[in-house]
Amino acid sequence: MDQRPDFASDYTRGAHPDILKRLTDTNMLKSSGYGTDEYSGSARERIRKACGRENARVEFLTGGTQTNAVMIDALLRSYQGVIAAETGHISVHEAGAVESNGHKVLTLPHHNGKLSPDTVEKYLEDFFNDENREHMVMPGMIYLSQPTEFGTLYYLDELKRFRRICDRFNISLYVDGARLAYALACPENDVTLKDLADLCDAFYIGGTKCGAMFGEAAVIPDPHKIPHLFTIIKQHGALLAKGRLLGIQFDELFKDDLYLRIGEPAIRAADKIRKMLREKKYTLCYDSPTNQIFCVIENEKLRKFGEKAGYSFWEKYDENHTVIRLATDWAATDEEINALSEALE
Amino acid sequence: MDQRPDFASDYTRGAHPDILKRLTDTNMLKSSGYGTDEYSGSARERIRKACGRENARVEFLTGGTQTNAVMIDALLRSYQGVIAAETGHISVHEAGAVESNGHKVLTLPHHNGKLSPDTVEKYLEDFFNDENREHMVMPGMIYLSQPTEFGTLYYLDELKRFRRICDRFNISLYVDGARLAYALACPENDVTLKDLADLCDAFYIGGTKCGAMFGEAAVIPDPHKIPHLFTIIKQHGALLAKGRLLGIQFDELFKDDLYLRIGEPAIRAADKIRKMLREKKYTLCYDSPTNQIFCVIENEKLRKFGEKAGYSFWEKYDENHTVIRLATDWAATDEEINALSEALE
Amino acid sequence: MDQRPDFASDYTRGAHPDILKRLTDTNMLKSSGYGTDEYSGSARERIRKACGRENARVEFLTGGTQTNAVMIDALLRSYQGVIAAETGHISVHEAGAVESNGHKVLTLPHHNGKLSPDTVEKYLEDFFNDENREHMVMPGMIYLSQPTEFGTLYYLDELKRFRRICDRFNISLYVDGARLAYALACPENDVTLKDLADLCDAFYIGGTKCGAMFGEAAVIPDPHKIPHLFTIIKQHGALLAKGRLLGIQFDELFKDDLYLRIGEPAIRAADKIRKMLREKKYTLCYDSPTNQIFCVIENEKLRKFGEKAGYSFWEKYDENHTVIRLATDWAATDEEINALSEALE
Amino acid sequence: MDQRPDFASDYTRGAHPDILKRLTDTNMLKSSGYGTDEYSGSARERIRKACGRENARVEFLTGGTQTNAVMIDALLRSYQGVIAAETGHISVHEAGAVESNGHKVLTLPHHNGKLSPDTVEKYLEDFFNDENREHMVMPGMIYLSQPTEFGTLYYLDELKRFRRICDRFNISLYVDGARLAYALACPENDVTLKDLADLCDAFYIGGTKCGAMFGEAAVIPDPHKIPHLFTIIKQHGALLAKGRLLGIQFDELFKDDLYLRIGEPAIRAADKIRKMLREKKYTLCYDSPTNQIFCVIENEKLRKFGEKAGYSFWEKYDENHTVIRLATDWAATDEEINALSEALE
Repeated sequence: MDQRPDFASDYTRGAHPDILKRLTDTNMLKSSGYGTDEYSGSARERIRKACGRENARVEFLTGGTQTNAVMIDALLRSYQGVIAAETGHISVHEAGAVESNGHKVLTLPHHNGKLSPDTVEKYLEDFFNDENREHMVMPGMIYLSQPTEFGTLYYLDELKRFRRICDRFNISLYVDGARLAYALACPENDVTLKDLADLCDAFYIGGTKCGAMFGEAAVIPDPHKIPHLFTIIKQHGALLAKGRLLGIQFDELFKDDLYLRIGEPAIRAADKIRKMLREKKYTLCYDSPTNQIFCVIENEKLRKFGEKAGYSFWEKYDENHTVIRLATDWAATDEEINALSEALE
Repeated sequence: MDQRPDFASDYTRGAHPDILKRLTDTNMLKSSGYGTDEYSGSARERIRKACGRENARVEFLTGGTQTNAVMIDALLRSYQGVIAAETGHISVHEAGAVESNGHKVLTLPHHNGKLSPDTVEKYLEDFFNDENREHMVMPGMIYLSQPTEFGTLYYLDELKRFRRICDRFNISLYVDGARLAYALACPENDVTLKDLADLCDAFYIGGTKCGAMFGEAAVIPDPHKIPHLFTIIKQHGALLAKGRLLGIQFDELFKDDLYLRIGEPAIRAADKIRKMLREKKYTLCYDSPTNQIFCVIENEKLRKFGEKAGYSFWEKYDENHTVIRLATDWAATDEEINALSEALE
Repeated sequence: MDQRPDFASDYTRGAHPDILKRLTDTNMLKSSGYGTDEYSGSARERIRKACGRENARVEFLTGGTQTNAVMIDALLRSYQGVIAAETGHISVHEAGAVESNGHKVLTLPHHNGKLSPDTVEKYLEDFFNDENREHMVMPGMIYLSQPTEFGTLYYLDELKRFRRICDRFNISLYVDGARLAYALACPENDVTLKDLADLCDAFYIGGTKCGAMFGEAAVIPDPHKIPHLFTIIKQHGALLAKGRLLGIQFDELFKDDLYLRIGEPAIRAADKIRKMLREKKYTLCYDSPTNQIFCVIENEKLRKFGEKAGYSFWEKYDENHTVIRLATDWAATDEEINALSEALE
Repeated sequence: MDQRPDFASDYTRGAHPDILKRLTDTNMLKSSGYGTDEYSGSARERIRKACGRENARVEFLTGGTQTNAVMIDALLRSYQGVIAAETGHISVHEAGAVESNGHKVLTLPHHNGKLSPDTVEKYLEDFFNDENREHMVMPGMIYLSQPTEFGTLYYLDELKRFRRICDRFNISLYVDGARLAYALACPENDVTLKDLADLCDAFYIGGTKCGAMFGEAAVIPDPHKIPHLFTIIKQHGALLAKGRLLGIQFDELFKDDLYLRIGEPAIRAADKIRKMLREKKYTLCYDSPTNQIFCVIENEKLRKFGEKAGYSFWEKYDENHTVIRLATDWAATDEEINALSEALE
């Protein structure tokens, strides 16, 4: 291994070898632009099948913040905002992309990165009972991440409850699946792609962090839900001229259900790392079962560790300790874990 | 050749082989995100050198509409609009991306896709003499394309004149270089990258249509001109997580000045096609010297041609004739031209 | 008369005496805010009756640019633009208010300030036949002014034709009635409030220029057309806390059909001025039959005239002549006209 | 008195008699539009004098939400947000007006409606030390209300501290003075107009709630701070055609320093009501010394009270109690207070 162990994130490598091969094989062929090519057509079909939705609209975009901004703007009316955990990616780390399109992010408290259906329902009840509600931003959708920023998972009964809440208040449910492959590969997870298609007004299947070179696939189970989405995407500067690049990647990701398995090495690696950390007496945080591991580390130890390995700063724990995040990916190897273990001595 | 001749556009193929090789070679290596990687660093250095600007800010983006929207929004204040030819890409074919960020496109008449400095100066004089100007959108920049939508070129003396106009009225000059490689490779062109860096407040070096798999490089010669550009890019959903993909591509494009030569096959092919069309007695339009060829074709003939080859509809010429566009690219071959010639019999 | 004759505009005086009296009479009474007061309720009822629409939604706003911006934003989806004459108020003199809400103004040529139904229908046919239309701003409404910026009128058959065009392409029809009272009082006019309510998706009844102290009344004949309009108005900063001020004014304007008659003095005065100008051998422009008069005046003469009277500069006619605008209002007097006549000697 | 006691708000009456008289006296006179009239000029001069700032820019707007939206948009760059108390008017009750212009409201906890300088400074330190800050909305200003939504006051030493914080982080300080007259008339207050002009980048002097018929006066002590403010106001649909209406009102409000005294009857009345409530054993909340009074009332008692008097619901206190708000205004009378006292028996 010619690089030091690097668990800073899950978007630090290129693409799954099958994808790279297909990009190479098709490189000099010509195809039409803007997602009208045959590869994109095939990828859409495979995703529809995997989601159990023959008529779903599937659109390919380039990155997560972009996909969130476009889909949220497409689903909301101008006077509506989006409910999100105060730790949600759209709340904190998208530089105000949602607001730049005119929509308020209505933040609610989280537990381990998750919104509680009770909290959301209470908020919506209060809003729709508030005499002054017409002077306030109307909640128009619930934004969830699966898994969350903290690596935790929503379970099927929770998502069903959110769906019922959305139906009760006539608002949309949207799931950010930037790391969806790591949820799907996690033994604890009980939410399938078909469930997401049944329960959400829209969601996206993350590629960038899940084996693609880049790209995300937005799925709108009922295609009538968002008219003129193509133009909306174009208007946001989010339409890739060589759309086939995205089509090819998702066609490979959904060939023989690769996407359902691609996260497995990451989960296995993360489980090993969690076991190792516990053995080394580190305190784990947030109880994440997916590819993100959070632990407390003493600052002086962290300094030394940082010289030997890559990690992400998460937050200050106290004067002498820090919470760091380690993320594994679809190509994680035992070799890397061993090197990490050594770096943590 | 396993495909029919296709001259519909210049973004129909994948990437230059050198780029594909480098993407392959680096695929399993890990690097940091958001353009902080070493490849992006090296690419920036090479672009700065090619532009003769050691301190220029260089940012990589994913596509042309996105780059225009971000840079125009970054350069303008909320009360300003952008002057463009009525045929400019931002005026017509970007789905209102500029307006979606709150800025009016102030369109002026064109000649062969070009704005005339006289027209622009007259417009600005009239605006700044208009007693009602404070009730109007203030022009804040001039948008040009090099080459234009019609394949025509701005010459150095014209760009210098636009610069003087911008200085006179204290507004910005921005050049959209989606097809810049085809200008640089064109014998008629007298505008270098260094000239653009000397004259523009910002411009972009097109990758998507010029040999990259995808991506554009925005250059801001004076880095103080746009503070907080990174955040602006992020807010527009335009920041690629795996920024190294763009870095690697532009590092290759600017290795040994490849970008300056990469358009040559396209220009040679376009010249041959123009010669062939003249010999076949077709009427050429707009006098384009670059990789786009426009010609008038009788409708019945077009129907047959369309069965054998790819082209772009440009506009109706009269009841019985159509203007079509043929575009060559960096990988154009004599084989393709011969097949085109046959298809046009 | 203690002021020089001033025909610069029709918003240079305060309010009709009945309005001022009512504002005075109610001044120290308390009433609820945001248009929930009884005066606003009564005004809405009177306007609904005058429009022959029992269920119409009526909202009061403060000014014309504001009303246009709010209503256009409320009627359009994010990917849509508004068709307007290139001379339309929203196209030129609203500082990009429509674009600041993300919508492109799609300008078409005018004749005497009017859009031709043929021109608009051709434009829409071309748009919906354009293969690239999904890359373009989708036209979502037609914006007309009654009377136009040039004082000209749309006739009933023209408006009916626009309605059919809107129905054919499933877009909205909106009429800016900033000076509507002057149309309604004009003998040449054949369009009633009921016609507007029958034909438009929304229109506004101008108060500011038509006898109110300030304010405009937006009418949405089918109240389901724009859900959550109250919140949209609030979000635009256009909701007046003391909504009763607007309610009181429009309650007076529609008491005993005052609004239908209030423009009559202005039309009579304008006709007299036109006659006088013709007698003095001035060239009239645009053939306006309403309260705006446009004429050509020699520059040196204009300089002297400007010392004695108020007028608006309209545009340069040639090196030695200027087009000026004179506007009469609801309180125009013979005394003023005589003073104007003297100033024009 | 022909109305029941109504303490629902401070914008329920018309205008101070001096203002109404002046509007009446000037009603039939003509003056130029958009704030270029002599009344506006005089009002600006008087406000500049009262603020001790000869060069200050003063612009008149129509309402509070509008003024906040315009000024915040004018002071911030596209990538910046505004820090506000979570209870701030812009955070909750302006229907997302700030976000509709693309800016995030960065909410922080409050105490009795006030932001603590310590909290704000800590937040800013954390932000500017955050490695990910370029992915986040950059704080660009601090928004305060004087008095706050809870009727509390910022003291001079607090405002000076906020100014130092703003200087340290190079951001703007903006004060919403919707009820400023009630602060200025409050014995506890130690912040003058001159202090605000010394310490703020911009603030507004509220008219609507403070004796004007309607209107607010935005003051920018350093006029270079916001170039092209006129066009920004116009673009927001916030420019009143008959600007003189605002000029006349503020000219009266600042004649003989009326504005400094106009809130006194409200404060005297509020003090009496507070005394009365204490005597009646009601629990007062938030310790407001200005014209807003908050108290806890048992629900059944509230039902009966609501039949006899006007109040505002503030929030649920517990299952059996409610917090209500009573607001006095510039024209409050002992008669009203007596009627209120009876209604509260």
